[in-house]
Amino acid sequence: MSELFLRTLREDPADAEVPSHKLLIRAGYVRPIGPGLYSWLPLGLRVLRKIEGIVREEMNAIGGQEILFPALLPRAPYEATNRWTEYGDNLFRLQDRRGNDYLLGPTHEELFTLTVKGEYSSYKDFPLRLYQIQTKYRDEARPRAGILRGREFVMKDSYSFDVDDEGLKNAYHAHREAYQRIFGRLDIKYVIVSAVSGAMGGSASEEFLAESPIGEDTFVRCLESGYAANVEAVITAVPEALPIDGQPEPVVHETPDTATIAALVDWANQALPGATTAADTLKNVLLKVREPGGEWELLAIGIPGDREIDDKRLGAALEPAEYALLDDADFAENPFLVRGYIGPKALQANGVRYLVDPRVVDGTAWITGADEQGKHVVGLVAGRDFVADGTIEAADVRDGDPSPDGAGLLTSARGIEIGHIFQLGRKYTDAFAADVLGENGKPVRLTMGSYGVGVSRLVAVIAEQNHDEIGLRWPASVSPFDAHVVIANKDAAARTGAIELAGELDRLGVEILLDDRTASPGVKFKDAELLGVPWIVVVGRGWSDGVVELRNRFTGETREIAVDGAAAEIAAALTG
Amino acid sequence: MSELFLRTLREDPADAEVPSHKLLIRAGYVRPIGPGLYSWLPLGLRVLRKIEGIVREEMNAIGGQEILFPALLPRAPYEATNRWTEYGDNLFRLQDRRGNDYLLGPTHEELFTLTVKGEYSSYKDFPLRLYQIQTKYRDEARPRAGILRGREFVMKDSYSFDVDDEGLKNAYHAHREAYQRIFGRLDIKYVIVSAVSGAMGGSASEEFLAESPIGEDTFVRCLESGYAANVEAVITAVPEALPIDGQPEPVVHETPDTATIAALVDWANQALPGATTAADTLKNVLLKVREPGGEWELLAIGIPGDREIDDKRLGAALEPAEYALLDDADFAENPFLVRGYIGPKALQANGVRYLVDPRVVDGTAWITGADEQGKHVVGLVAGRDFVADGTIEAADVRDGDPSPDGAGLLTSARGIEIGHIFQLGRKYTDAFAADVLGENGKPVRLTMGSYGVGVSRLVAVIAEQNHDEIGLRWPASVSPFDAHVVIANKDAAARTGAIELAGELDRLGVEILLDDRTASPGVKFKDAELLGVPWIVVVGRGWSDGVVELRNRFTGETREIAVDGAAAEIAAALTG
Repeated sequence: MSELFLRTLREDPADAEVPSHKLLIRAGYVRPIGPGLYSWLPLGLRVLRKIEGIVREEMNAIGGQEILFPALLPRAPYEATNRWTEYGDNLFRLQDRRGNDYLLGPTHEELFTLTVKGEYSSYKDFPLRLYQIQTKYRDEARPRAGILRGREFVMKDSYSFDVDDEGLKNAYHAHREAYQRIFGRLDIKYVIVSAVSGAMGGSASEEFLAESPIGEDTFVRCLESGYAANVEAVITAVPEALPIDGQPEPVVHETPDTATIAALVDWANQALPGATTAADTLKNVLLKVREPGGEWELLAIGIPGDREIDDKRLGAALEPAEYALLDDADFAENPFLVRGYIGPKALQANGVRYLVDPRVVDGTAWITGADEQGKHVVGLVAGRDFVADGTIEAADVRDGDPSPDGAGLLTSARGIEIGHIFQLGRKYTDAFAADVLGENGKPVRLTMGSYGVGVSRLVAVIAEQNHDEIGLRWPASVSPFDAHVVIANKDAAARTGAIELAGELDRLGVEILLDDRTASPGVKFKDAELLGVPWIVVVGRGWSDGVVELRNRFTGETREIAVDGAAAEIAAALTG
Repeated sequence: MSELFLRTLREDPADAEVPSHKLLIRAGYVRPIGPGLYSWLPLGLRVLRKIEGIVREEMNAIGGQEILFPALLPRAPYEATNRWTEYGDNLFRLQDRRGNDYLLGPTHEELFTLTVKGEYSSYKDFPLRLYQIQTKYRDEARPRAGILRGREFVMKDSYSFDVDDEGLKNAYHAHREAYQRIFGRLDIKYVIVSAVSGAMGGSASEEFLAESPIGEDTFVRCLESGYAANVEAVITAVPEALPIDGQPEPVVHETPDTATIAALVDWANQALPGATTAADTLKNVLLKVREPGGEWELLAIGIPGDREIDDKRLGAALEPAEYALLDDADFAENPFLVRGYIGPKALQANGVRYLVDPRVVDGTAWITGADEQGKHVVGLVAGRDFVADGTIEAADVRDGDPSPDGAGLLTSARGIEIGHIFQLGRKYTDAFAADVLGENGKPVRLTMGSYGVGVSRLVAVIAEQNHDEIGLRWPASVSPFDAHVVIANKDAAARTGAIELAGELDRLGVEILLDDRTASPGVKFKDAELLGVPWIVVVGRGWSDGVVELRNRFTGETREIAVDGAAAEIAAALTG
């Protein structure tokens, strides 16, 4: 440490919000260069490389072959898949000296597809699993939390290519298991959540989320069953249909000034027998929706009045279509839409597409708009008085909602996305007509999966899950060193002995950080705690009595070890 | 190889000019993605990583500490050193979503200086040697020869920081020796040439050039002494001064129509006694020169008439000033300049700065312009009839010129720059006022060196120096595999035996590429020769007689090895 390029800081950096960011800067692992741009100092780079090594081993173990693409990429392939445009402001674009357009790659689906198409031509060449560990770029609107969400970052992205769906499934499961092994070796607490495939047209997609209160992703899970899903991907637990026979006919009521659900519920509780809650009302929300390349069309969504539309769930459900709220001109053009009093009747009479929340099952009776100013209808029964065009997962998800597997209740939590596995299917192979000759002599369109791990982000995630108020605490698999030997005794013999001990440990294959500085023991201990190497060997006062101390940075436990044979005993303690 | 992501090509790619480019593409090591942009396929990436590993080991061995900066960098630091502008079209520039300027780093002097300034504050922290192995960007005007001159490439750049010149010299020599070890381990044939420091104000700079007929850099060397220098850096061998006493007085002659050296020599051979050559004439070339931030000023350069001005040498000699030829307006403004007949007399009478070639030593007599249309002066003696303001290294260098060390003659050769070491001095530390507290309590400005190795380029350089007409031939230190086992016998027992042998070799630590494809032996041998693994093990017809064949890809030698104990014998042959 007398030579290591390292200065620890006593104070938290002014603009750091989250613990990992504060500690990684204070402990001299990374330094900010610009918004979302960080340099890796020696200790940080060691952690990053160890994580890369683990990722590489597990990718190789499932037959992944490592290749490496440029980060600077021409526009054309991304134009072909429309990602040049779709990525919007998130893409760093630039021009070369001839004025040709380039981008800094966010992910490389296009290039992998084109390369495989270029090299291979027969079904015999598959399955194929390729990956790279590479620097990627995204012009984040709000780079935050240090290396947790940077604009330049290291990612492992892999891509599988198969001639049939069975092959894609195998590749997907192989990656799923590889990711479980990777995150297991990194001692990360994580959940696997169902994710929405969105526009990509894939049939399955899951995210690996590290559990963390500072996570940007909200997910829900059922502690009883282990079910977990992204908010976008939660499937509503559907109640059983009710018998329609014997239900009273619907009655239209005068309900002046009840354009809000709250006012309607108040009215109902005064005017009708029994207690009414917002969940008894059916709120009809009007949107306009446009498929890619299509025209705007009206869409009505009916959800129980106690729920709100969740923008993320709505967006995911409608993707790839875009949507917008109606403006005054839209209402003027469609006079059958009576704001505050819209009901299924007018919608269906006027051919408006009508999707309802999955809870609106046949036989449920609702208080809803009667399509006239100041009027609602009571006892409108789904499946008898109206039939929706389908259901939509757009209502918000709440703690206490039943799990779709019926095993218990959902609770929400926050996580940080650390991995994503995705059955892409043929989106990209269609874009580039990536066919090979099939076993029957006819062309087969390849099917594809993409799989990502946020490698540099993992440094922050591990720091976020492993720290206390005094510093970092690295799991042994990624710690920059295996043990930190602190010389805390000014005696020359102790110093020489410590250096010898460090040398012996090194020869035993233990990576040692040796604090041979002239600083005080107090300063050295503080730094050792901040840096977070999991084992600290103190060569201190006990030296004259023939003992050194071994401290565990996680448990705080200490034990004395005889100087004679100390190296072997310490090495054994570390691996035990 | 039945699973390796590899397709070899029988034909040279259409646009490949140099052998390394053709072979690296044909052998499936790299693929073009765009001009100057390449992807690394599995075999190429293995070679690249092995070179990186050797570079890393040797940098660590001289106390280098590895860190890693972003490639995407903010404009401000490069603005401070003017490199944002100086780099011209070679710099990739871009803006982020907020319209802020960024660049893709070509080298990182600014960031290293700022980082060291930010972390360290005392002379006690030095010497310091930092490096990174990183992806760099240069928007080359003519990307060429594949990965030899790409626009995205991997470079090892290191920077030394010291408080005194002695420290800088030590760092420089440590790097020089580390580079010798690196290139030695890579089996590269190279020369170290003196290089011009140019604008950087450093006191010493050398380039490592790999000898290659396709190199873009011309250098000269003296085979007798080992002297070698960049053309820009060649020092002219200065002849001894001649006695002035007794030399005849200069005589002005009418020399009509002798505005060219050839015409003047013709005239002299008719009009004067003895033989005259162009080397007896003194040609005065007029330029205008402007120091950074200064005004244009006239500069005259006198060189023997048998030489031409070399633009590269002139530019290097004048740097950081820029220069231009005179136009008609300049001649009109300076009527004392008589085109074709300019002599030292008018130059010096009119206060024009006058620099001469180092061969124009005192006592040499010249035929030169007499500053009047159609007149020259004969016998104008340097040191008597004119005294220049100094000398300049601007004349061209030719094969057969004497070496400056007097040991022999210079010959020119071509090379590829693979390394550059540079005593930068205080250019960058001045720009950022990078001071630390000195031993005497006063601030000391740091002094700096920068040192680069073109890591990805080395893959091509090694291929360029190690190939024959049928393929690549990798030195063992960088070969993607240690040995290539070819199954050239369809017998099931031979196949099983080959797979077992490969497994045994693998357990002995020998990295094996196993050709287990169903292709014909001929196809497999061709591929093995093309891929260039230095040792090829053929499990062929001899299998039934209990022998396999070991081929050396460099020498072509083959020997038979008994199947019993083959693995150990092959492993021994490889390391022997």
